[in-house]
Amino acid sequence: MINFTVGPVQSSDAVRAIGAENVPYFRTAEFSATMLENEKLIKKFAKAPEGSRVVFMTCSGSGGMETAIMNCLTSKDKAIVVNGGSFGHRFVELLQLHQIPYTEIKLAPGKALKPEHLKPYEGQGYTTFLVNKHETSTGVHYDIDLISDFCKRNKLFLIVDCISTFLTDPFDMAKLEADIMITGSQKALACPPGIAVMCLSPRALKRVEQNQCLCQYLDLKLALSNMDRGQTPWTPAVGVLLQINARLREIDANGGVEGEIARTAALANYFRTRLKELNLPFKIVSESLSNAVTPLHPTTASAYDIFLKIKDEYGIWICPNGGEMKDTIFRVGHIGYLHQADYDQLLDAFVDLQKKGFI
Amino acid sequence: MINFTVGPVQSSDAVRAIGAENVPYFRTAEFSATMLENEKLIKKFAKAPEGSRVVFMTCSGSGGMETAIMNCLTSKDKAIVVNGGSFGHRFVELLQLHQIPYTEIKLAPGKALKPEHLKPYEGQGYTTFLVNKHETSTGVHYDIDLISDFCKRNKLFLIVDCISTFLTDPFDMAKLEADIMITGSQKALACPPGIAVMCLSPRALKRVEQNQCLCQYLDLKLALSNMDRGQTPWTPAVGVLLQINARLREIDANGGVEGEIARTAALANYFRTRLKELNLPFKIVSESLSNAVTPLHPTTASAYDIFLKIKDEYGIWICPNGGEMKDTIFRVGHIGYLHQADYDQLLDAFVDLQKKGFI
Repeated sequence: MINFTVGPVQSSDAVRAIGAENVPYFRTAEFSATMLENEKLIKKFAKAPEGSRVVFMTCSGSGGMETAIMNCLTSKDKAIVVNGGSFGHRFVELLQLHQIPYTEIKLAPGKALKPEHLKPYEGQGYTTFLVNKHETSTGVHYDIDLISDFCKRNKLFLIVDCISTFLTDPFDMAKLEADIMITGSQKALACPPGIAVMCLSPRALKRVEQNQCLCQYLDLKLALSNMDRGQTPWTPAVGVLLQINARLREIDANGGVEGEIARTAALANYFRTRLKELNLPFKIVSESLSNAVTPLHPTTASAYDIFLKIKDEYGIWICPNGGEMKDTIFRVGHIGYLHQADYDQLLDAFVDLQKKGFI
Repeated sequence: MINFTVGPVQSSDAVRAIGAENVPYFRTAEFSATMLENEKLIKKFAKAPEGSRVVFMTCSGSGGMETAIMNCLTSKDKAIVVNGGSFGHRFVELLQLHQIPYTEIKLAPGKALKPEHLKPYEGQGYTTFLVNKHETSTGVHYDIDLISDFCKRNKLFLIVDCISTFLTDPFDMAKLEADIMITGSQKALACPPGIAVMCLSPRALKRVEQNQCLCQYLDLKLALSNMDRGQTPWTPAVGVLLQINARLREIDANGGVEGEIARTAALANYFRTRLKELNLPFKIVSESLSNAVTPLHPTTASAYDIFLKIKDEYGIWICPNGGEMKDTIFRVGHIGYLHQADYDQLLDAFVDLQKKGFI
């Protein structure tokens, strides 16, 4: 199978080689050193401000989103959240559950965030901004500079879900004055799922210190105090953490975050260009694309039927959508261990489907 | 390295082979089928009552303990908890955090639970009993029949942390009328860490249905409704779930849970017998042993120094203890892919340390 979904994605040989080994015991100086190196490299690639910290939580990216809210927000906050798809909607659900007052900027699928969306909220006493920098469900990459400027002017605490955009599109945490950056092991980190990575600014660390988290498992105070010595309060997904280490070192040795972004952008551009040249019956439905994924609306067949056909007859996974978009949108990812030749194979499959009159 | 810790432990060739592969996309009928087979086999090995359900949470065993409490207990409960070590203490901390009224049966390290410990609580209006069937930190295996009888007489809801004892010691969920059984992927399941497994009785399912869980990530209502179709609400540790499947099938093909318990018991007996024959300066400190682990008090040297020495000079991990027991106790595990010859190597190392005057 070739995997073009947005996670889990394909892993490099070095990462898979670690998966083949027994998972080592981890309450050791050796594992601590690996964890502290992971922290250092995540901070480097996120361009985190001086004094930031990183924690590795054994949970999904959504678990990381909830961890941010449970540890840093209270009912005294007044939040703005961008809701342009499933993951924006998840932030909204979490704010409701944890009783954080919020205002929602609701965007139709595929729509970009524009200055006029933010204007009504200038100087209105908001304290916090939450955004999925890349709304993965619809493939919309929001203008983070616009959001950052708004937050700076209004002195907002900025929580950024970078789950599917970390390492695929530029992100400068210090310059943006973002407070929490969240990503997951199974996106552009291209490791198995199981770990959410969170980078916390000094301002976020202060919020964690002042708050009580009502879930021990997701308590960042415990995670941070253990991370002082490169450890975790509970048994983590040790194997994935070792794989993350191999992957971060690989990226560091190959041009760092800029190199990785360029590599992903080249794949995305190649696919999008060939798609146009082949005149396939798919319409790109996002006003603002990330390098991570291309969301497509097939104009002649059901998106889900195409997903099944491509899986069962060509040995290729493209990424289906759920809910209302099940039949109208599928996505093709550009993250993980993929190469130009893989896209040629996918495009050939599409062309073949067209010849057969399926699309 | 040979790994005698109590997790992560060594994995079979079949399990490690899956680790070497790319993790597949999981929103598919194929993955759902695997998950439903996992559920079936866990229920079979736990001897779960008719109508039970299983969920696989991407978190540590401690995350599973908290999930049980957050989904099934409220401030209207009145709980009894056995606290004989670090994991009993964790249950106590969780009851405190979630404001569940409780009474603690505090046992000194190494001490067994006896009828007189329970007697004062007969007919006192308790609603719930929580116990770590095997208190892994001190290697004490509690008398679950005693606890079960008490719960039946007093109509208590019974939460059993079986994290390190599932598949190593007999457990009959139906007969015991236990309501929640918790285990973890990295114990006798002998897979990488990352997944907590929870088996829920019909009575537990009713409690979940009636409660509101104040953590979306650990919400069993969401986990259960997704598990109806063999799925999870969030991206799970897909790779570990496939490895669990391979391992459950292995056990099923090799005499089932009874075969696995017998295999573990044979290793534990072999080690304990040889230990006595060699007259090593280690004292077994538990009044009631599980097959999973042998807790040892070295009488001539620091337990932690022995751990370090064995790791650095012999390439073997034994399991150190933390906190107050750091220098007085280490543990030797009997779970995971271990064989008699591995114990010979460990015993040789101990004999060598004795010759050198280190112990």
